[in-house]
Amino acid sequence: MKALRDVTRTITSAQSFVNNDTKHLNKLITSERGVWHAFSTLAYDQNEAAKYLSVWGKSEDVDLTDVTEKVSYLITKLSEAEGVLANHYSQYRSHLKEIRIREDSMREQRSKKETLWSKLEKEERKSNPSKQRSEAAEKRIQDYHNELNKLDKDTLDAETSLADFKRKELHEALTAQFDAFLEFGEKLVIISKHCKKIIDQIPITETRPGEPREQYRGNYRTSCC
Amino acid sequence: MKALRDVTRTITSAQSFVNNDTKHLNKLITSERGVWHAFSTLAYDQNEAAKYLSVWGKSEDVDLTDVTEKVSYLITKLSEAEGVLANHYSQYRSHLKEIRIREDSMREQRSKKETLWSKLEKEERKSNPSKQRSEAAEKRIQDYHNELNKLDKDTLDAETSLADFKRKELHEALTAQFDAFLEFGEKLVIISKHCKKIIDQIPITETRPGEPREQYRGNYRTSCC
Repeated sequence: MKALRDVTRTITSAQSFVNNDTKHLNKLITSERGVWHAFSTLAYDQNEAAKYLSVWGKSEDVDLTDVTEKVSYLITKLSEAEGVLANHYSQYRSHLKEIRIREDSMREQRSKKETLWSKLEKEERKSNPSKQRSEAAEKRIQDYHNELNKLDKDTLDAETSLADFKRKELHEALTAQFDAFLEFGEKLVIISKHCKKIIDQIPITETRPGEPREQYRGNYRTSCC
Repeated sequence: MKALRDVTRTITSAQSFVNNDTKHLNKLITSERGVWHAFSTLAYDQNEAAKYLSVWGKSEDVDLTDVTEKVSYLITKLSEAEGVLANHYSQYRSHLKEIRIREDSMREQRSKKETLWSKLEKEERKSNPSKQRSEAAEKRIQDYHNELNKLDKDTLDAETSLADFKRKELHEALTAQFDAFLEFGEKLVIISKHCKKIIDQIPITETRPGEPREQYRGNYRTSCC
């Protein structure tokens, strides 16, 4: 019974090993392409919007022309920052792809192990636990164990190295991602604060009908931003 | 000659007035829909990617399971922040649409002015500057001027009020946009710093083949994030 329990436990472990292939990693890489694409689209669309803001402003009076031109310039800087972020996001995905390449390189040997585990499980199921196994069955089980042990030994270095590589690569991948987010967040804060100063130059005091609008002098303040 | 110069100058001013319709504003509002859409897509895609990061992590060892789960949680928070930003961006567009509604409400009277300016220009072109205008021509020109003056007087309050409204609304629109960007930028900085602390718990020391990986204790540190 103990032998059966041991084998069952190892089979369960082998099954979790089978789940540990590149299926989930593939889905992650694909979904991250969506995020990368959204950032790239955002960079393009924000640059377009910046242009139209400035064009509209030019069709208005000098105060709105000035404010929209300066804000538009800073939005193009924001768009550039989004472009940089998209590039860094692409690097993050490259790290994940490197892990997938290494996982894939182990596929053949992992597949062999999987087949051996299936055979072992089948042999165990055929045996009636209350009766003694036939000598031939015992031999087959032993052979599978020996083959598995040999495969484990042969792949030990590669599996350990892959496990190390995966950690190192994921560390680099996520660090690249959050360094980029941090940089982008900091740029966003700076750009937003500058833009708010410019926006505050829009004259919002009411003008009496028939009287001229107060002369705009905000450009002295907006040019420093 | 002076009368002609005056009329020409006023015609030029009227032409710039004609350019100042909602054409450019429409393009701006449309392009900003692209930006809003990109933010909404980003919020959705980032949430999806967070899920897949966690699912992949669960198929790995306890250290990677822990780190990816915590990072994934913070990415969902980032995705929520992107959703909030998209909502604020939508408010920014609403302000621009309010300006468009008010501009549109002036369309009929502006169109009348435009027609009168065209008629005046045509009449001026017909006259030969070296010769005296006919009495009938002088009268037509005078009538157009009178009509224009009356229209200007009638729309003075509305145009002044619209010019004030436009400035107030643009001020609110851009303030809404950059308050939202500032808030998002600050959230990004906080989330990124937390994530970097979690990522640093990924054990990147090499493991000797055959020896067990050092026990993971990073979860004591990652749970505080």
